[in-house]
Amino acid sequence: MAVDTVAPAAVDLGPATALSCRECGHRVPLGPVFACEECFGPLEVAYDLPGDPAALRARIEAGPANIWRYAPLLPVPADVADKPNTNPGFTRLIQADHLAAELGVDAGNLYVKDDSGNPTHSFKDRVVAIAVEAARAFGFTTLSCSSTGNLAGAVGAAAARAGLRSCVFIPYDLEQGKVLMAAVYGGEVVGIEGTYDDVNRFCSELIGDEIGEGWGFTNVNLRPYYAEGSKTLAYEICEQLGWRLPDNLVIPVASGSQLTKIDKGLKELIALGLVEDRPYKIFGAQAEGCSPVSRAYKDGHDVVRPVRPDTIAKSLAIGNPADGPYVLDIARRTGGAVEDVNDEQVVDAIKLLARTEGVFAETAGGVTFGVLKKLVADGRISPSETTVALNTGDGLKTLDAVAPTTGVSATIKPSLDAFRAAGLA
Amino acid sequence: MAVDTVAPAAVDLGPATALSCRECGHRVPLGPVFACEECFGPLEVAYDLPGDPAALRARIEAGPANIWRYAPLLPVPADVADKPNTNPGFTRLIQADHLAAELGVDAGNLYVKDDSGNPTHSFKDRVVAIAVEAARAFGFTTLSCSSTGNLAGAVGAAAARAGLRSCVFIPYDLEQGKVLMAAVYGGEVVGIEGTYDDVNRFCSELIGDEIGEGWGFTNVNLRPYYAEGSKTLAYEICEQLGWRLPDNLVIPVASGSQLTKIDKGLKELIALGLVEDRPYKIFGAQAEGCSPVSRAYKDGHDVVRPVRPDTIAKSLAIGNPADGPYVLDIARRTGGAVEDVNDEQVVDAIKLLARTEGVFAETAGGVTFGVLKKLVADGRISPSETTVALNTGDGLKTLDAVAPTTGVSATIKPSLDAFRAAGLA
Ligand SMILES: [Zn+2]
Ligand SMILES: [Zn+2]
Repeated sequence: MAVDTVAPAAVDLGPATALSCRECGHRVPLGPVFACEECFGPLEVAYDLPGDPAALRARIEAGPANIWRYAPLLPVPADVADKPNTNPGFTRLIQADHLAAELGVDAGNLYVKDDSGNPTHSFKDRVVAIAVEAARAFGFTTLSCSSTGNLAGAVGAAAARAGLRSCVFIPYDLEQGKVLMAAVYGGEVVGIEGTYDDVNRFCSELIGDEIGEGWGFTNVNLRPYYAEGSKTLAYEICEQLGWRLPDNLVIPVASGSQLTKIDKGLKELIALGLVEDRPYKIFGAQAEGCSPVSRAYKDGHDVVRPVRPDTIAKSLAIGNPADGPYVLDIARRTGGAVEDVNDEQVVDAIKLLARTEGVFAETAGGVTFGVLKKLVADGRISPSETTVALNTGDGLKTLDAVAPTTGVSATIKPSLDAFRAAGLA
Repeated sequence: MAVDTVAPAAVDLGPATALSCRECGHRVPLGPVFACEECFGPLEVAYDLPGDPAALRARIEAGPANIWRYAPLLPVPADVADKPNTNPGFTRLIQADHLAAELGVDAGNLYVKDDSGNPTHSFKDRVVAIAVEAARAFGFTTLSCSSTGNLAGAVGAAAARAGLRSCVFIPYDLEQGKVLMAAVYGGEVVGIEGTYDDVNRFCSELIGDEIGEGWGFTNVNLRPYYAEGSKTLAYEICEQLGWRLPDNLVIPVASGSQLTKIDKGLKELIALGLVEDRPYKIFGAQAEGCSPVSRAYKDGHDVVRPVRPDTIAKSLAIGNPADGPYVLDIARRTGGAVEDVNDEQVVDAIKLLARTEGVFAETAGGVTFGVLKKLVADGRISPSETTVALNTGDGLKTLDAVAPTTGVSATIKPSLDAFRAAGLA
């Protein structure tokens, strides 16, 4: 676990030069560590980024149609695209004029960033793809994580593709579908008798033990690298808008890492001169049944009080979000907000997005689009501004959410008279 | 239904100039017809294709990362990318070295074309996207189909996105999951009391009736356009190989349309001078429980005898494949073959592909990779040749196939001792 067990010379993670504490700025060499030894703050990747914006833009645009087009801005070696990885990203940015019309946004101003097109159909493929490269760099042979679903599948797939062993830990009572989606890739899937918090605690124990030698936990000891994968959402959105910042971004909040890193990505693009420096607002979206950050935002607090999650948006059900304070800070600094919706609004929003744009979102997407609707309705998002909302997962993984209110229009005998009688002609 | 109800001047489908009978060559103007009035043979789209290969290649490479980069070769208007469509395609071509090693193919020679990354996670998005443009061109306001699953979802999504009404017809006893995937997009989903054949017969009746005026059935009266969508798989594979033909292609066979159109696409690329003219072999893959084309191939027949399907590969379960004779012809002409595998081999192949390359395939993909394995094992596919095999759908849609043999490695208490005892450390 100590940094000096990895010889810095052996680690080639491209433009990444060190890890830097988000709180106190303390720097340590690149290695499988995640907390500052000085202040216990979270460590982030620091870079030596390219200087010539025109050359960088040309290089990006000539790159592959996946996240590796942004390799000069990520903690990955220059030849990353030649190694076996799942190659996620460059997903669709959809100009959502039908949805805009229903919500009251001006035509041409609303976009859906649809991450359900990723290899295992969630944004987790982005972060895991970066973690795989870090695991390789540090000589890890087993890829691991604690997960309630999407992450376990993404880790299983990426490890299989990379030729790494995988062993993922899940609560023992996870739905069979999610177990299958993780176990089909042939890695070990271990059910832990306890809650997700118990799974997390067990993983921390494992990292500290000799068993954990050679193990890279994507969301623990590889977290600084893993988290950087979310920056690619910021890059793609701006590139797909024609190298332009949106006015507003609506992003779901689980741990808060994704929102925090998207903000980091936007700031990098400005600093690099790839987009014009102008204001943008970031809005966080939570489910009412797990809304500790939204609660703190509304109460004007800087501290996020943990809650016990109770929502159908299980992939957002983190009651004690590590990056919650950063989300509060970003929402306030940019003039955005953090808002929440209840489960019924989540389901309505899933069906609204499907009906208007043909995108079938996971419950997390329902949270985001439900919050978007609320923000437009009460004027916090202006119809004349450009807004991008994220769908981070796939409706196929949370069919239960829509099952009670979705089904056939009619069942009829195979005759035209029967069809006429059903009133659908 | 008659061709002359559509004024030819009003129809702009880009390079498409007419429909041409595949059997007798008889030509008719572009319109919503699918059978030759002379000989009842299937109608295909005829084109006026561009002449300058260098200019065409440059134009394609500068195009969007979806099927519209090939708009100059498809029956779609030149401004197709500006209209609301689901924009499928340009899915991953994965160099599958781990799978190659297991099968005994030389490293660097085996590729997986993974169409599970499409918007509704099957290749059907490609064909439906083209049908949407034809529906617009002919002034249809309702998009329809008969389906057992994937197609209904693709039509529902594409219609929602395009702003068309949709009404799809399915057998009444379809699994709830598949009903949800179709119905969530808000169109009408009608269960028909009968088999898939009854659903098809009912749709033909509906097209002939006044109720059907303004209805575009993707796989009936829009079939000539719809089917062209499969050509994009040929274009993408060759472009992604560096504008090069593979030596071998392994393609699943349901109606046989996909295999037939991929062959058409390859021949077009040769004629256009975009790839070198050299031999390629096309192999068709069927499930043993629905293998009428494979049976005819092995028996040396030109005629395909219908069967009653009984296989877990439901998306391939067409007992009377319309393009079966063309598949036989192409397999024999190119030096390929048509082969089949049983349900157990299908499941094994799904798990093999997931374990080696991190790709979770639908049962149809299991059929294709099961057949690939067989063809390599018996020497019909050479280890030293370049082979591309298609995964046309997503394992999330056919979880039942892997459920009995996939699950957690162990369930343990959250302690290191328990983990050690489980033998996974
Ligand atoms: Zn610190
Ligand atoms: Zn004819």
